[in-house]
This record gives sequence, C-alpha cells and structure tokens, in this order.
Amino acid sequence: MKKIVTLQQSIMAEDEKFAAAIREENRKRGLLMVNLIGSPGCGKTTLLEKTAELGGFPFAVIEGDLATDRDAERLAGWDIPVVQINTAGGCHLEANIVQKAMESLPLDSVDVLFIENVGNLVCPAEFDLGEDFKAALLSTPEGADKPLKYPYLFASSQVVLLTKTDLLPHLSFDMEMFTEDVKKLNPEAPVLLLDASSGEGYDRWISLLQERIREKRAHGR
Amino acid sequence: MKKIVTLQQSIMAEDEKFAAAIREENRKRGLLMVNLIGSPGCGKTTLLEKTAELGGFPFAVIEGDLATDRDAERLAGWDIPVVQINTAGGCHLEANIVQKAMESLPLDSVDVLFIENVGNLVCPAEFDLGEDFKAALLSTPEGADKPLKYPYLFASSQVVLLTKTDLLPHLSFDMEMFTEDVKKLNPEAPVLLLDASSGEGYDRWISLLQERIREKRAHGR
Repeated sequence: MKKIVTLQQSIMAEDEKFAAAIREENRKRGLLMVNLIGSPGCGKTTLLEKTAELGGFPFAVIEGDLATDRDAERLAGWDIPVVQINTAGGCHLEANIVQKAMESLPLDSVDVLFIENVGNLVCPAEFDLGEDFKAALLSTPEGADKPLKYPYLFASSQVVLLTKTDLLPHLSFDMEMFTEDVKKLNPEAPVLLLDASSGEGYDRWISLLQERIREKRAHGR
Repeated sequence: MKKIVTLQQSIMAEDEKFAAAIREENRKRGLLMVNLIGSPGCGKTTLLEKTAELGGFPFAVIEGDLATDRDAERLAGWDIPVVQINTAGGCHLEANIVQKAMESLPLDSVDVLFIENVGNLVCPAEFDLGEDFKAALLSTPEGADKPLKYPYLFASSQVVLLTKTDLLPHLSFDMEMFTEDVKKLNPEAPVLLLDASSGEGYDRWISLLQERIREKRAHGR
C-alpha cells in the first residue's frame, strides 16, 4: 500500500500546480467551482438537473466518467454547457485535465462550474481540482455506516448531501448514527437531506450555493 | 491519466507474482477463491451473511475497508473466520496484502475464501488477487446505466449479481437495458437477481458456488 501512496503523492505534487492555477483563474473571474463526489448512482447528475430546475443561476458542468457520455447527454437536455471527460479506466479526475476541459466552456457567462467527479467514494477525495469546496453525496440505500468507512471524503467536504430520502421508508437507515458519525468527522459541515422526487430539501442546497456565489463575486471580478 | 496507468502497471506486474502464488496454493488446497466487487453499500456483506445462512458449506472471509472493522464484526456474529484489512485510504486490495491475511485463516477447513474488496466499482477490477473468479455486484438504486459507465468490472467478472431487487417497485430501473448492456460487455456471465429480504434468487447463487466448489476439489487436493 505504501508504495501506491508514495507514487500518488508525487503525481499530486505536480497536479497541485494545475489546481492552484485553476483557483487563481476562478478568483479573478469570480467563478464558484464545486467538486461533487459520491458513489456510482448516488444522484450526482440528478442533483445537477434539480439545480438547473430550481437554482435560477447559470452554471457549467464538467462530467467525469470512465466511459459513455450518458450524463452529459442528460444535462445537454437542460441547455447546460457541459464537457465530458472519459477517463478510460481512471478512477478520479485530475486538475490538469480539468484545466483543459475548462478552456472549451463559456466560464465568463456562468456563476458556478460544477465538476461531477467519477463515481467513487475513495480516490476523488484525494485530488485537489482547484475547487472552492467539495460536496460529499451519499444515497440512503448505501447505508448509514458509510461515513466512518469512507472517512476521507466526509472529513474533507464542506457540505454533506444525503440523497434519495424518499426511499427511507423501505430501508433500515440509522439516521442518528449517520448524522453523529458525520459530525465526528466534520463538525462544521451541514448535512442536507434531499428528495429529488418531491424536491424536498433543495431550498437549503440552492440557498447555500447562492450565498457562496455572492461571496465569490464580492471577492473576485 | 497516462502517467497513473503506467505506474499502476509496474505495481501490478510486481503484484502478479503474489497473485500467481496464491492461485497455486489454492489449487493445491482445492480451495475456491471469489473476489466480490461493488460500490459502497451494494450489499457485499449482506451477500456473505445470506451465503452463511443458506449455503451449507464452510467459508472464510477477508474484508477490505478504508477504515473500521464493522463488516468483520457483522460476520463474526455468524462464526465465520474473518480477517479485516484496513487500507487507510487505499482504494483496492492487492495480492501481497491478501497473501499475508490468508496466513491467519484456517484455509484447510473451509471450501471457499471470499474477498470482500473495498467498496468501489473502479480500481478493484484492475487488480488480480489470485481469485478463481470475480463477482460484480450492483444494487438496483445505483441505476441500470452503470454497466456501460463502469465497463471494466462487468466485462471481467464471471457472474453479475443485481442486489436489492425488493426496491424495484420504488425505482425507475430499466431492467431490459441493464441485462442487454451486461450481455454486450460479457455475453457469458449469468445475471442473478437477489433480494436479501425474501431470500429470492439466492438458490442460483448457492448452486453456482456449490458447482464451482466441486470442480475446484476435483482438480485440486
């Protein structure tokens, strides 16, 4: 294991330069950048669709997937500028590739750039893409024990989104354990409960984004 | 991306020696080894609990997790010999660590060694642990589009297990697309539908294992 960590660290050191450059570009632009991380099928693309429906602000998306452009297709239906990156087996996105993808997006005419990372609770948490903050997504069917089992993501995110709460009546999900475990790892991060079918909970997500957009604009541009 | 692939390949070349050694040991022992791979919360530990309940054959387990020994605790309740590996951030198991973990298990008195890999649809698929076959798990809430989005695992597994079928009435899961996409990637692999709450579908899983145990014994020992 040690060997892999060492190799990853050297790659990460090189990649940190790209992340810093992205952060500086976005500071000048006053553009908020959010890195969405969660398992396959936890609802990252659905979150973006609901944000398009309810948010009232323009945004662009970079989609990371091993293969296919299905998520980009879904978002194109919403008239959202989107670039698809296919990692061809790579388990996470890296800043150098994100920087290239950003070149083909109309970033001066949007308020937020969302990165939908590769569906994976592990590796994407370790790579800085130059984002303002990471949002950790967990869907209720994955189980309440996941924060402690995948602590790196939950500890390093500024907001935790529990999705698919409409399925709670059909699951044995220990909500108390979940919120306590998240608090242990990350006392500051708000935990938002989201139900895409009814729209419940999205008001808090949208408010959080609007506040961060205002802050970012005030400091940039 | 290319850089990571190259580095991983050199690690993998070294690790293949360990995988080959495990395969040779298990051939002599007549021990079947199965590598279970799927997302966080897809039901890998539940599959092992149901296999203990319904299988009627002794098995041992190596648990891979970033952190915690919750899964090992769950299985210890079933009187199953289990070793927990904590990868401390590592996104997959490797053969050299598995070989060490095997030393502390009573492998001469069991028919199967299950490896419950780290919850991740991406990285574990690329590492040979010396197993007889990989089983790919997908839970219905993850969505029917996942095989084509995470093709490496589904193409390299000898059986595909669709878990949590009891949730199907509450989801929009395109079963036809799912089975067709799996067939495109892997025409030979049977697709088993499993419902842990009713036990439906487990008879096929248990039969498949019993057949493989018989074959393995006939060629080894």
